[in-house]
Amino acid sequence: MNQTYINELKNHIGEEVTLKGWLYNTRSSGKLVFLQLRDGTGIVQCVVFKPNDEQLFESAKSLGQESSIIVNGKVKEDTRSSIGVELDVTGLEIIQNATEYPITPKEHGTEFLMDNRHLWIRSKKQHAVLSVRHTVVKATRDFFDENGFILADTPIFTPAACEGTTTLFEVDYFDDDKAYLTQSGQLYNEATAAAFGKSYAFGPVFRAEKSKTRRHLTEFWMVEPEMAFAQLPDVMNLGESLIKFIVKRVLDERRNELTVLERDVTKLEAILESDFPRVHYDEAVKILKEGFAKGELENDFEWGGDFGAPDETYISKQFDQPVFVHHFPAVIKAFYFERDAERPELALGADLLAPEGYGEIIGGGERAFDLDFLEKQIEAHNLPKESFEWYLDLRRFGAVPHAGFGMGIERCVAWMCGIEHVRETIPFPRLLTRLNP
Amino acid sequence: MNQTYINELKNHIGEEVTLKGWLYNTRSSGKLVFLQLRDGTGIVQCVVFKPNDEQLFESAKSLGQESSIIVNGKVKEDTRSSIGVELDVTGLEIIQNATEYPITPKEHGTEFLMDNRHLWIRSKKQHAVLSVRHTVVKATRDFFDENGFILADTPIFTPAACEGTTTLFEVDYFDDDKAYLTQSGQLYNEATAAAFGKSYAFGPVFRAEKSKTRRHLTEFWMVEPEMAFAQLPDVMNLGESLIKFIVKRVLDERRNELTVLERDVTKLEAILESDFPRVHYDEAVKILKEGFAKGELENDFEWGGDFGAPDETYISKQFDQPVFVHHFPAVIKAFYFERDAERPELALGADLLAPEGYGEIIGGGERAFDLDFLEKQIEAHNLPKESFEWYLDLRRFGAVPHAGFGMGIERCVAWMCGIEHVRETIPFPRLLTRLNP
Repeated sequence: MNQTYINELKNHIGEEVTLKGWLYNTRSSGKLVFLQLRDGTGIVQCVVFKPNDEQLFESAKSLGQESSIIVNGKVKEDTRSSIGVELDVTGLEIIQNATEYPITPKEHGTEFLMDNRHLWIRSKKQHAVLSVRHTVVKATRDFFDENGFILADTPIFTPAACEGTTTLFEVDYFDDDKAYLTQSGQLYNEATAAAFGKSYAFGPVFRAEKSKTRRHLTEFWMVEPEMAFAQLPDVMNLGESLIKFIVKRVLDERRNELTVLERDVTKLEAILESDFPRVHYDEAVKILKEGFAKGELENDFEWGGDFGAPDETYISKQFDQPVFVHHFPAVIKAFYFERDAERPELALGADLLAPEGYGEIIGGGERAFDLDFLEKQIEAHNLPKESFEWYLDLRRFGAVPHAGFGMGIERCVAWMCGIEHVRETIPFPRLLTRLNP
Repeated sequence: MNQTYINELKNHIGEEVTLKGWLYNTRSSGKLVFLQLRDGTGIVQCVVFKPNDEQLFESAKSLGQESSIIVNGKVKEDTRSSIGVELDVTGLEIIQNATEYPITPKEHGTEFLMDNRHLWIRSKKQHAVLSVRHTVVKATRDFFDENGFILADTPIFTPAACEGTTTLFEVDYFDDDKAYLTQSGQLYNEATAAAFGKSYAFGPVFRAEKSKTRRHLTEFWMVEPEMAFAQLPDVMNLGESLIKFIVKRVLDERRNELTVLERDVTKLEAILESDFPRVHYDEAVKILKEGFAKGELENDFEWGGDFGAPDETYISKQFDQPVFVHHFPAVIKAFYFERDAERPELALGADLLAPEGYGEIIGGGERAFDLDFLEKQIEAHNLPKESFEWYLDLRRFGAVPHAGFGMGIERCVAWMCGIEHVRETIPFPRLLTRLNP
């Protein structure tokens, strides 16, 4: 008999089916045993009635949490169930009766759960978060594929640093050579955008930052679109469309998971309703200064500085929507930013701050067009010019205005799910002090 | 005026449009200049007629290869053109007149082209290969997403080796700790399959092999599906369906690119027509021995050995289709393979050999179920048991028969394109002696 999946049971009411999965939870009451069976697509209650088959009843009663079983039974409509059905069990095959499964329904500490991440991902909430991740990734890829972008993944091994070396992981390459793990594919994306017009990279990136915050992982996934013949407003338009596309998809396909996570979906629904505010850096500074004057911020933010987490949170709290801040001081941005023609102290960059304190989820802007300017920038930043000759070629041969951004997947997933820490948004998180399991 | 893309021009016959792109090639003849304009979506011939506008004519004539330009003109049907249209130029804006573009239409050596990979990808053939790659990746992801698999990407940083340490890249992690770059996400996939029923990982993997063959990269992309409640035949069924899905998609969407690459598409079309042969290792050995007897193979292959490239090529030449070889000797396979119940010296593994000498593109099988067996295997392979405790947990808590495979994307793309070397199938290849650009 073929396997039926739990998420398809609604189409099999009245039929005999075979389910294969694991015992999520169990309780018994007199002549009844209720098995909560999970198979990866959902959880269904399977009811064993003693008078039907005493031996089956005793077997069912003996099962420990996470035992692997094959259950035969008849699908019955059940309006009390969240999936609308339950199963009247007629047969049970025990593949393995598990005992002493370490993650019980009681509370566990974070370190214990992280040590058991390989099992923790079976839990309802973790399963929901990772299902949302699947949908965020799928939506992101579909968005770019449907909008004429060509996937051009950039290398993980890079010969030099894109934005400084202190936060780079070093790898022993062959013959005593050193390679560095990429922090961003952006410089390479500029080459692929000149080949494809619109391109994107989507892969893991690495930051050797000694940050122990709820927003940081040492290894995370980033999508980075790049467009030829594009400028700063195009970055904000594209970013806004992408976010709305993702939010809509998650709302359409992951309602059940958002319910499991107790996510306030009205906050996500609101994202789709209006335009994202776009705030000039000057204006953002004014907002922060007002916040300080009102006693709502500890520090008096000075023009020219970079936002800290409390600043980002304060700015985003002034709006219901995600908010773009644009035209940052060039000194706090990387060497490759295009400058504002009227106020060259400003970089044509834009960051998107997510609502609800989730911080920056998009960062990007327009890239410098001019060869001389870039050569001076590379010198001023003490970067090894030799390593950037190929990048400078992009300004020697067919330079065009171009722009793009990067979006971190884990922060986006955390925001969709409304969860506190990014470590739960990836199957096996890597942190400052964690390489296991 | 908004930008029109070259791949949409057919829908704009008779209209005035604006194209933005780069000069791919140019020639002039009397009062005419023919500009081959590329914009990443295609190439179109733009015709400048001197009597219409002398200044425009002189500008057009002055342009060097890969100059960046904006061209206005009227779309005209042209049956001689491969895209069915050409452009009568009415306006030309030069963004940058490029001179001395290093990659000219003449022949260049491979090392030179690889040094200029950031520009080489603009060439017709490279553009075609990377477009096919885009479609192979998209098809692969769609296949798994449409078949109920959940994307669960596995970590790049791993604490220990999955299959021996000699081919691992070592990374300095924090506090003098060492991490290793993943060679395969498989062990982790076994955990995610137990959470999701069916899962897949799709990311870069790394092999520090000192191999300088046309089939090897140090960094490449691999897709790895894993299924709970699945066995060896399921691996072959899934692999065959995947390959056919990819081939069909490439034929449907990349005909033009295959033409550019002069690919014999009848060889790909044939893939869709019949079932893939499935050959027992014993049978494969017989084929190789016959090949040696006929003088078509240099070595007399002995039962128990692993196939070399000439062996793989010889086996695959006996069939028109990709061919699965299954039931390998356990000694040549990794520790985690399930054994054949009747002949425990055989591992329940299956490799798919691509036709036309492209070698193994899928490798997988059924994973060992039994805790005691695996503990002994880990000991026999001198692996540090401590590092595998989490993996052994998967046999302690709800073990089920499960199986999966890995498919290397670059070899698959090389095969689709009919090209010789995998280094052209990825935007920025990383090889034993190449980390640049």
